Amino acid sequence: MEHVAGRIPVLECLRAQKRAAHKLYVLAGARGIEDILRAASQISVIECSRQDLDRLLPDTVHQGVVLEAEPLPVLDIGDWLERLEQPNAVAAVLDEIEDPHNFGAIVRSAAACGACGVIFGKHRTAPISPAAMKSAAGAMEYIDMVQAPNLAKGLEQLKKAGFWVAALDADAPQLLWEADLTGRIALVIGNEGKGIRRLINEKCDFHLRIPLSGPITSLNASTSAAIALAECLRQRHAH
Amino acid sequence: MEHVAGRIPVLECLRAQKRAAHKLYVLAGARGIEDILRAASQISVIECSRQDLDRLLPDTVHQGVVLEAEPLPVLDIGDWLERLEQPNAVAAVLDEIEDPHNFGAIVRSAAACGACGVIFGKHRTAPISPAAMKSAAGAMEYIDMVQAPNLAKGLEQLKKAGFWVAALDADAPQLLWEADLTGRIALVIGNEGKGIRRLINEKCDFHLRIPLSGPITSLNASTSAAIALAECLRQRHAH
Repeated sequence: MEHVAGRIPVLECLRAQKRAAHKLYVLAGARGIEDILRAASQISVIECSRQDLDRLLPDTVHQGVVLEAEPLPVLDIGDWLERLEQPNAVAAVLDEIEDPHNFGAIVRSAAACGACGVIFGKHRTAPISPAAMKSAAGAMEYIDMVQAPNLAKGLEQLKKAGFWVAALDADAPQLLWEADLTGRIALVIGNEGKGIRRLINEKCDFHLRIPLSGPITSLNASTSAAIALAECLRQRHAH
Repeated sequence: MEHVAGRIPVLECLRAQKRAAHKLYVLAGARGIEDILRAASQISVIECSRQDLDRLLPDTVHQGVVLEAEPLPVLDIGDWLERLEQPNAVAAVLDEIEDPHNFGAIVRSAAACGACGVIFGKHRTAPISPAAMKSAAGAMEYIDMVQAPNLAKGLEQLKKAGFWVAALDADAPQLLWEADLTGRIALVIGNEGKGIRRLINEKCDFHLRIPLSGPITSLNASTSAAIALAECLRQRHAH
């Protein structure tokens, strides 16, 4: 079982029906949750005290609603690629993104910009936690969440499936908007502190930089990702 | 006096010298803070226990360093515009952004994308707090922080100074990348829940939309802001 916390994540989990939900815990007297209660009409709803909810999820902003559901389905990259049909699919590839808020924020931006999947490795990566789901604002219930147990091999699989693999790299010579990002594109986003690992970087077809011009020379990982995802969207509109 | 918490915000506050720093509190035995100690060589450094630091800033991730400094200088919009010379200046205008992390994240993206100032109102707006400064990752020490006591009037002042005022609005007919964003541009970003207030919206010269194509139909306010700031950067590079 998995816990989903927060009003938007809970509502979208119930609406998307990507996985079965079992129980809804709500803060006694909580207001403004009519939508959630309507979406939860088929499952048991349990009223709790604030202390009960805080005990259930000590480190997460739950906003008075916690859903108990089946674990979020995570697809294997091989199976996922076999079934993927979209010719101009965009995927976000996370190389050891460790912060749950960045993880969730990238999933949200990817889903909003029309990407078809978020691909992540097995080790040193933020788990699919209530905090990550909260930052994703329900997006994990819609976009495909795909695991590549070995990320370097995953990039090879992506290439075989016709993806061009683009690394976001602050030191790259090519500017983000100079590259052709139409067709199948996998955008690789590196760890918050260390960036993209060498082995992963070497497998990328091209390396792209957002040419920062101010006194602050780095962007948050999820911000870089959003800018690149939006550039994919822009180029698709221009075509 | 103001408190700055976290390694990057403290280091950048000391380096930028936008304001005087007085005392540095560090966790006894903290490692990896050599840069900070070097930058703080002219002020008193006080070793503390974790409890002392937690008591000083109960709700902020301080990472073992807290700086006591003069308040961050906030400029008045009239004075700021009088001294502004840059012909293609970009400014971010925040209409009641309430979340300190969004506030800080927008300041960081604005500084990284070469914007010259962040303009905010007086009421219902996230304060310049340790949490906002932490999310800004030092950017508040470099970019101009500008207050417009009356934001609607502030937009008039911006227009008189040659700015085109563009609203980010999910329902706008025009796409973000269809607009000419060269020259002086003020990008207006609305409240996380309510968007841009009607009175403010009516004062904008144009209204721009990021055409989201996925199942998730909204972006985080700081993410939208970053995408629009990056588009200003792209258009400046293309010229």
